[in-house]
Amino acid sequence: MILPTYDDVIDAANRISRHVHHTPVFTSAYFDRRVGASVHFKAENLQKVGAFKARGAMNAVLSLTDEDASRGVVTHSSGNHGQALANAARVRGIAATIVMPHHAPAVKVAAVRGYGATIVFCDQAEREAILTEVQAESGATLVHPFDDAAVIAGQGTASLEFVAQVPDLDVIVAPIGGGGLLSGASIVGDYAGVDVVGAEPDVVDDSYRSLRDGVRHPATGASSIGDGLLTGIGELTFAVLHAASRTVVTVSDEEMLDAMGTVASRMKLVIEPSSGAAVAAILKYSDAFHAKRVGVILSGGNVQLSVLGGLPAT
Amino acid sequence: MILPTYDDVIDAANRISRHVHHTPVFTSAYFDRRVGASVHFKAENLQKVGAFKARGAMNAVLSLTDEDASRGVVTHSSGNHGQALANAARVRGIAATIVMPHHAPAVKVAAVRGYGATIVFCDQAEREAILTEVQAESGATLVHPFDDAAVIAGQGTASLEFVAQVPDLDVIVAPIGGGGLLSGASIVGDYAGVDVVGAEPDVVDDSYRSLRDGVRHPATGASSIGDGLLTGIGELTFAVLHAASRTVVTVSDEEMLDAMGTVASRMKLVIEPSSGAAVAAILKYSDAFHAKRVGVILSGGNVQLSVLGGLPAT
Repeated sequence: MILPTYDDVIDAANRISRHVHHTPVFTSAYFDRRVGASVHFKAENLQKVGAFKARGAMNAVLSLTDEDASRGVVTHSSGNHGQALANAARVRGIAATIVMPHHAPAVKVAAVRGYGATIVFCDQAEREAILTEVQAESGATLVHPFDDAAVIAGQGTASLEFVAQVPDLDVIVAPIGGGGLLSGASIVGDYAGVDVVGAEPDVVDDSYRSLRDGVRHPATGASSIGDGLLTGIGELTFAVLHAASRTVVTVSDEEMLDAMGTVASRMKLVIEPSSGAAVAAILKYSDAFHAKRVGVILSGGNVQLSVLGGLPAT
Repeated sequence: MILPTYDDVIDAANRISRHVHHTPVFTSAYFDRRVGASVHFKAENLQKVGAFKARGAMNAVLSLTDEDASRGVVTHSSGNHGQALANAARVRGIAATIVMPHHAPAVKVAAVRGYGATIVFCDQAEREAILTEVQAESGATLVHPFDDAAVIAGQGTASLEFVAQVPDLDVIVAPIGGGGLLSGASIVGDYAGVDVVGAEPDVVDDSYRSLRDGVRHPATGASSIGDGLLTGIGELTFAVLHAASRTVVTVSDEEMLDAMGTVASRMKLVIEPSSGAAVAAILKYSDAFHAKRVGVILSGGNVQLSVLGGLPAT
């Protein structure tokens, strides 16, 4: 297994810079006060397709040889990676097939379709078979949502920008589902001398336990409002994060929702529940961040507004 | 009546720049497509106190002589101006008294109190008497929410930044309640050769009719979701806008709500209903903006999240 490197992240940044947003960094006196730290928020919710996933998919697609690219790309996703891959394929002018579950929200289906991708609906049980079938028929390249070196390097560009925008960060906090975003952050953090901490829902704490135990545990299969974080940590992402001795902290669904509402009412930014995990982490474990320069990646903003509407203003 | 000038806006910018945010400008491929124009959004919802009002109040407070400042400031407001004046007074280290209606939302009362201001509750009928009383007792300077040259000049700094951030704007669209924001935009627009258009709820269309007829009409007294826009156009603001032959367009509450939801789901920004008026205007009157370089001021982001939650994702 070859782990992606800092040079891969630099290459990714050069490759994708014209096709993704250089997202802004925000501060908030309210959060500084509550955490007792200097907190900086990297607004990947304002990224293309509404999430950092635009970076990794773009890097993977732009890294393909012309011959491979001509046969298109395929992935399975009910969420942001599907949109991100469809968007990247459109930019390169190649075909994309997105395998989605039957129960995928209509708004996400419409978004993927809007980027011109082909959608194949499936049951969870037949997902692998359908992916294999599409690959066999078309020769399309599978772009995995996180267990892919080019995807990890692409996600790392968010942290590469972050450390350039905010000098002397002590730590970057980011949510972890499959681990692409956090692995990218870890690679950049290693180089830049910045600590990196993951945040995940307590009911799907496989990453927390995997990195604590040094053994990759499977996904718990539980459900959480952090719908982007349900998947288990990947092989490659585990290897990257374990090698760097990274740790993960856990937060409850209620804490994630509260964090979302606080970001909306105090910072006027819409973030999705998965992003709320990282924000909740700095509030819950504020002692660990005291007096530090803290960077939080607001990983995405794709959420039904009705979820926001159920939250109290803080 | 002496109207504020472009030089006053420049002076205001120099005076307040260290105490307010230089807010970012965002674009959205979605809005460009829907309007058929190049649309730029000035994010005053990310301004201190969550609205452009921070600018005018700051300029008014920093413009006071030391002697006047020592006696404090007073205003009446149930909304953003109260917070803005309380914040400005805190920055200068002087006393502020905010006269608020008994029914003011608890969250707004808490915000004003959080800035260290004194709150006096009153009924609408006794408001003027209480303001007079506070002024008589303390010698405090009244800072009117909009009919004040220093406030107008301060609000103009939003547009001053905007035309510097986006060269060759054809038109700036902003909501109008009392008219401070739009008057400031008009002064800058005159100098920079940029057209300026106001947007207001159709049920409180006094500004629309006043500028159409060249006569200042009183507020309609109707209610609208655009709670920052219910007040009638001011004397001074009418004079500024009438002299520049500005026009106002009207939108329905439903169109404002739809615009808020679209900004939240497409741009991941929380805006208040009043801001929705300007966004709704470019969607409703897209023909008038076709192929132009359009600037929209997202005037504020102070809204109960439950309002957002009732909106469909677009």
